[in-house]
Amino acid sequence: MSPDPAPGAPAVSPVHPDPPRTDLSPIADAVENAHAAGFAAVGDRFDDDLRYLSRFGGPDRDFAVVVTPDRAVLTAPGLFDEQAQREFVDAAPDDGITRAVSTENQGDPAGVRAAELLDDFREGDDRSSTVLTPASIPHDAALYLEAAGYELSSTTAVADARLLKTAAELACLRRVHAVTCRGMARAEAVLAAAEPDGDDLLFEGEPITTERLRREVDAEMARHGIRSAGNTVIGAGPSAADLHFTGIDHIAPGETVLLDISPRGPHGYYGDLTRTFVVGSDGGWERRAFVAVEQAHEEALATVEAGVTAGSVHEEAAAELTAHGFRIDSSAVGFTHGVGHGVGVSLHEGPSLRADTPLETGNVVTIEPGVYDPDIGGVRIEDLVAVTENGYEKLASYPVRFTPVGSE
Amino acid sequence: MSPDPAPGAPAVSPVHPDPPRTDLSPIADAVENAHAAGFAAVGDRFDDDLRYLSRFGGPDRDFAVVVTPDRAVLTAPGLFDEQAQREFVDAAPDDGITRAVSTENQGDPAGVRAAELLDDFREGDDRSSTVLTPASIPHDAALYLEAAGYELSSTTAVADARLLKTAAELACLRRVHAVTCRGMARAEAVLAAAEPDGDDLLFEGEPITTERLRREVDAEMARHGIRSAGNTVIGAGPSAADLHFTGIDHIAPGETVLLDISPRGPHGYYGDLTRTFVVGSDGGWERRAFVAVEQAHEEALATVEAGVTAGSVHEEAAAELTAHGFRIDSSAVGFTHGVGHGVGVSLHEGPSLRADTPLETGNVVTIEPGVYDPDIGGVRIEDLVAVTENGYEKLASYPVRFTPVGSE
Repeated sequence: MSPDPAPGAPAVSPVHPDPPRTDLSPIADAVENAHAAGFAAVGDRFDDDLRYLSRFGGPDRDFAVVVTPDRAVLTAPGLFDEQAQREFVDAAPDDGITRAVSTENQGDPAGVRAAELLDDFREGDDRSSTVLTPASIPHDAALYLEAAGYELSSTTAVADARLLKTAAELACLRRVHAVTCRGMARAEAVLAAAEPDGDDLLFEGEPITTERLRREVDAEMARHGIRSAGNTVIGAGPSAADLHFTGIDHIAPGETVLLDISPRGPHGYYGDLTRTFVVGSDGGWERRAFVAVEQAHEEALATVEAGVTAGSVHEEAAAELTAHGFRIDSSAVGFTHGVGHGVGVSLHEGPSLRADTPLETGNVVTIEPGVYDPDIGGVRIEDLVAVTENGYEKLASYPVRFTPVGSE
Repeated sequence: MSPDPAPGAPAVSPVHPDPPRTDLSPIADAVENAHAAGFAAVGDRFDDDLRYLSRFGGPDRDFAVVVTPDRAVLTAPGLFDEQAQREFVDAAPDDGITRAVSTENQGDPAGVRAAELLDDFREGDDRSSTVLTPASIPHDAALYLEAAGYELSSTTAVADARLLKTAAELACLRRVHAVTCRGMARAEAVLAAAEPDGDDLLFEGEPITTERLRREVDAEMARHGIRSAGNTVIGAGPSAADLHFTGIDHIAPGETVLLDISPRGPHGYYGDLTRTFVVGSDGGWERRAFVAVEQAHEEALATVEAGVTAGSVHEEAAAELTAHGFRIDSSAVGFTHGVGHGVGVSLHEGPSLRADTPLETGNVVTIEPGVYDPDIGGVRIEDLVAVTENGYEKLASYPVRFTPVGSE
């Protein structure tokens, strides 16, 4: 059996928060301002814009959400009628927009159904034939809309709306991120219990691997109703320098063990936490890298507040790592990536922390400086924070430790 | 602690199979036959066609795969160069197609990069300006290709290739489906251990819910390195009649408890298993429905073999359910859905079991008749099988039981 989790992880409510509701008025306003016929998004249940707009679990095949200044309709297959009604209509917020589910012509492609809805809405109306869409609308849907006489104009209204998290969205992010910390605590306790034996780290008599650690993390999160989403990245030594390593690697004493855990909650929101541990360190590159990254992480966090230019957070981390003698000009060695990214119903979304735009209250971003040497290993430390007027709120808090600590 | 799993689940190797390799020659042949400039697919790591074509874990933002009669190039961000090389190039099969990774102009949109590659390949060539693409290529990528002078023509070459599973793909499907059975065995043992107490079923002193069962299933699969993918559908009583219920419901004695588990393995392949149990049944609708569905499931399975018209499998199940007095003409009551679907790197893919086309050796399909009454409950029994010349192979086998049985 696994040891109990390492100390310092937050307590977690056994209950998921309620699903957030989406205020569609920014989309309706974009339609109004463009004097467009409407807005149309098309995609399947894996499309995060559709998820955000509809809160509908949805089918694997494409469906559409059409929005006008006062109406919003979701096209669903008949088998999903009840679920769509419950998730999209019954749960709607008070945003002045009347929602409905349409199962008419359910055999037709989603683009055709979107065009038919727009046709209905335009009757007796003087709106233009422009339809606003996200730029990534499937090409076949775009062609159907064009064949029906509409001109497409891409809009960033959905991405813009997603930048600012509501209280209900923050509640989802807090719980999934707290469970992420519980997963980390499980892995840390396993590492703390592992015993160096030559080139091996033995746990329960077996050499421990990244796969074994990943299974411990993922099972712990599943026990809290949170799924790994395939994003439990764990590397050891050189594979810790591979930013997206989800393979199987042996873990040796003295190596950096980097765990980047990004699971997804039942309403689609992600957690994102990285820690790096070394069992049986003899100092050297691993210790120097850890000290530098820990300092850069703290300095970058200290700059975060509403009104600060997003890119300056990155610059702060880069300056600190440079001061510690690490490169920031290479795609392979040193600080090779941006200091963070927005998180929501996508794991990577706005705001960019390399942009010139100011951070805003309600942005949720990772702060994750790291340094890498493909011959040795990698160190990264990451927290997930909500930007506030005077600073930030860690969505859950987990200790930063170089040497793993065992169960409480 | 959870009880040990129920008896009859298959043993599972602790080790994942190797990732399959994709023979790109059917795509190259489609290009050759159309005398096209090439084939281009654009999408992110969540796009299953891209996953199949490239075997590349990939970034959250769009990348492209371009195929000509003798070359295939994947466009990757610089940070993913090494991973793309390893997954797309180093692991390539011997299909006569030279693979490469391009990180040139990595800041450009994937559609622009695809067009640039096609331009390079056409130099000194007399190929047409037609580019074959899947119909769902993102609209912005399509516009970039058109702006570069290409005409798009949609192709089903990728979907067609995905219909026939290779030995390596079958190995992935077998292991993930065997772990699916382990998850089911855990849930069944929990139900067997639960004790009726008025309207409650008590497990470890608490009324059991669909959420509790889901956590047991998902944690068991995570321990085997398999992730739930958010597809652990569990309903009880009326919510068992909701085909896609992933919410939280109380479980009462005498109710149908329907578990439909569709997790995803590390190489992208899905398992798919459904069983229905009743604790403390007093007979009635639940028992009649179970007997009818079990019989329909067996009869439908018995028709499966290469050469049989896919739709006839559905008809066989429908005839059996009709003979038992259940409706097949409603979208709410009785047998409301198709008898099955193909499974691979998508949970729902070809072949359709309502089509006129014959099943082929190498198709992998679910056989899952069910009957529902939204006021009472639902019963469904599902296996995942590979079509063979003379019948089928269950990719893993799990007992069919009405009353749950406890741990071995």
